[in-house]
Amino acid sequence: MEYPDWVDSVVDWRRTYRTDSERMSLAIAVSRENVERGTGGPFGAAIFDQASGKLVSVGMNSVVRYNNCALHAEMVAFMFAQHRVGSFSLSSGTLPPHELFTSCEPCAMCLGATLWSGVRRVVYGAAREDASRLKFEEGPVFPESYKYLEDRGIVIERNVLRNEAREVLELYRSRGGTVYNG
Amino acid sequence: MEYPDWVDSVVDWRRTYRTDSERMSLAIAVSRENVERGTGGPFGAAIFDQASGKLVSVGMNSVVRYNNCALHAEMVAFMFAQHRVGSFSLSSGTLPPHELFTSCEPCAMCLGATLWSGVRRVVYGAAREDASRLKFEEGPVFPESYKYLEDRGIVIERNVLRNEAREVLELYRSRGGTVYNG
Repeated sequence: MEYPDWVDSVVDWRRTYRTDSERMSLAIAVSRENVERGTGGPFGAAIFDQASGKLVSVGMNSVVRYNNCALHAEMVAFMFAQHRVGSFSLSSGTLPPHELFTSCEPCAMCLGATLWSGVRRVVYGAAREDASRLKFEEGPVFPESYKYLEDRGIVIERNVLRNEAREVLELYRSRGGTVYNG
Repeated sequence: MEYPDWVDSVVDWRRTYRTDSERMSLAIAVSRENVERGTGGPFGAAIFDQASGKLVSVGMNSVVRYNNCALHAEMVAFMFAQHRVGSFSLSSGTLPPHELFTSCEPCAMCLGATLWSGVRRVVYGAAREDASRLKFEEGPVFPESYKYLEDRGIVIERNVLRNEAREVLELYRSRGGTVYNG
């Protein structure tokens, strides 16, 4: 699996991303570029070293590009981050805490994977109902699902830059983008 | 991603798998071989064309081998099946119904992916509590999670060849295999 060729023109890998807003802006920029370039659905994600603000990976929805239902933005971000650190968990060994920023609330698959990924914090932009307006399904996610993660020490932050994230969903809808799991 | 090199010695790709028992036996054989050969966790899966019994793909836990938390047996089976049929959904277009056999009850991630995969039926062997005995976590799966899938027409069959599937879990435990999400 490879990133689309536009990634290095949109993502500054050497910058320090200090605030939640800066981190979420990157996830949203990735989601927007994925739509603008026609490389996938309107979803972007990024994983950061929590304390330093160093960018570890990004992810963009790649379901249609790879004919692979698992390649949601969050999953792509997990896969590249784990490959980069050389571990199947971002919590393993001496690794510092990592966090996931995603432009939209995770679906059931991605929420499950979040638990296995080793990230310690999840921040999302647009909400489930924003995705549902486009007929994207989110699957079996319940309040208890979030509680399950929180009980294991994962912090969840909601609706950060929600309007900006939602605009990308609307852009995708206005262009008649494929809803691959509706 | 590639299968471990033992696959073609264990999997008969040309055979017709007629019964649930024959199909589950293959998923369990894959799980066992994955333990015996030391290529991953004690979980195997297979996807079949439901009516013909033709094998479409197998999957084996590959989390440690690829440093990738997403590569549970079911996910690997979905990815290879979708690649083979050339679609991100096994329900798309003129494809016949497909079904997933998995040696153990799916975790939260895999259950979510099941919805996106396009399979119409899920058959599992060992149960959540069998995996939990090894300290493998299954994540936020609730009775409503299954109802969510069933409401969308996915049929769930439980505990087919459970004892045989559980034996592989015990084999892994007796060998001190890595519990990568405990």
